[in-house]
Amino acid sequence: MSGGETLRVACVQLRSSAVKLGNVATAERLVAEAAGRGAELVVLPEKWNALGSADVYRAVAETLEDGETVAAMRSWARDHGIVLVGGSITEARAGREKLSNTSLAFGPDGELLATYRKIHMFDVEVGGETYRESESQEAGDEIALFDAAGWRIGLTVCYDVRFPELYRILALGGAELVTVPAAFTMHTGRDHWELLLRARAVENQCYVAAAAEWGVGDEGRETYGRSMIVDPWGVVIACAPDEDGVIVADVERERLRSVREKLPALANRVPSAYRWPPGG
Amino acid sequence: MSGGETLRVACVQLRSSAVKLGNVATAERLVAEAAGRGAELVVLPEKWNALGSADVYRAVAETLEDGETVAAMRSWARDHGIVLVGGSITEARAGREKLSNTSLAFGPDGELLATYRKIHMFDVEVGGETYRESESQEAGDEIALFDAAGWRIGLTVCYDVRFPELYRILALGGAELVTVPAAFTMHTGRDHWELLLRARAVENQCYVAAAAEWGVGDEGRETYGRSMIVDPWGVVIACAPDEDGVIVADVERERLRSVREKLPALANRVPSAYRWPPGG
Repeated sequence: MSGGETLRVACVQLRSSAVKLGNVATAERLVAEAAGRGAELVVLPEKWNALGSADVYRAVAETLEDGETVAAMRSWARDHGIVLVGGSITEARAGREKLSNTSLAFGPDGELLATYRKIHMFDVEVGGETYRESESQEAGDEIALFDAAGWRIGLTVCYDVRFPELYRILALGGAELVTVPAAFTMHTGRDHWELLLRARAVENQCYVAAAAEWGVGDEGRETYGRSMIVDPWGVVIACAPDEDGVIVADVERERLRSVREKLPALANRVPSAYRWPPGG
Repeated sequence: MSGGETLRVACVQLRSSAVKLGNVATAERLVAEAAGRGAELVVLPEKWNALGSADVYRAVAETLEDGETVAAMRSWARDHGIVLVGGSITEARAGREKLSNTSLAFGPDGELLATYRKIHMFDVEVGGETYRESESQEAGDEIALFDAAGWRIGLTVCYDVRFPELYRILALGGAELVTVPAAFTMHTGRDHWELLLRARAVENQCYVAAAAEWGVGDEGRETYGRSMIVDPWGVVIACAPDEDGVIVADVERERLRSVREKLPALANRVPSAYRWPPGG
């Protein structure tokens, strides 16, 4: 670990199928590649271990206690001595009827650093397709922030990126880097993926590391890809082409400090003027 | 008035000097041009009547009761039978040491529909220049929403666009269109102007009408221009080149309805998960 002034970050981009075995093998290879390139924080995409229908999610769901993919992520973090944000996987929780879309962060000793269950369910109609994430999964209701390698990191997933309040709350909690594992649709990705990732970085003056699914999946639905790492001024400092692969960038505390000092938007907030409506 | 299904919106782009007389004449001409093109809502840029230093603002400040520019805006709205969002002017308030950066909205009978005093003071260092808006002006602390021509409209000014909470609160209050008069710096405009305007439109699923100052002003500082009107999907439906002028676009309630129905992000919020820190 670098002590925190510079952190080498990698995003793994995948075209995950609905079958765990192949996905886990590809992810294992690419996490090793990222670590080999010196990455200290590696981010996997949403549903990296199996991307598919509600039926697929019911079939592949794991518990945090004895999930095979959970164990794999833990061992990869430990084997490479990295912080691993395990994109998201489908979690089965004891006593719950519905599943969760869960992002886990592991430290270099294999310890579980944070658990985030996606708060915003993707219940939309876009590009002629209907998505009903809440059919099989339930919304989380806890934000997740943790400290690792000298940085404060916030966890989010995919559709969350449309909700600025979540990222603002993470920033007010001290987030310096936020991860956005995703399986963005091609239709919404074209118009909103880079836009919203860059906006979250700019308005919260933090780094954003977004690891994406790309290409046509087993359901015939196309995801947008273009994994990217964005700096606190909104500059895209790394971006993935359309393939399985790894992107790497060094994030710099000095850059963060400089942006926040010269354009102190976080300090210039006026909370006394923000009168949220009931339930807002 | 159209009854609200379609609203023709215009943004006036200006290169305002520090001297009122010429600015008022140019604005009067361009408001008339906008009305002549059928605009029902016309938006002027920030500090349209005089753009300059703190000393300039002290010299040109007006009260709402007897300001000459206030009277001019009122008469333009009435003469053309339009809704006029008067960008912003420098306001002097009785009993206040500091001035306000104030956006006024007038209706087609010349009535004052809303008063918004810019909440976020531009105290930053960018592009080698230092800005200290709070030296001469004080922050407002009230949001402003009003109904006109069948639409619900929110008022903001320039630097506000970096603060997503303000736009979210306006959206939760029902805003269907938000105005952003601005004098954005060239340095920040290059990287953030279109990005943040589009993000506010996309995340709040509303129209954004942003009227800008452009070119080099009397202080030698260059503003970014590129006035634009953005639809609720983030599409820039009108954009100004580098000149004094008017851009016009029809905003459609059906477009708003369709975006909000198919991708119901406002309805998919999870307020119970948004635990703001004290003062947040």
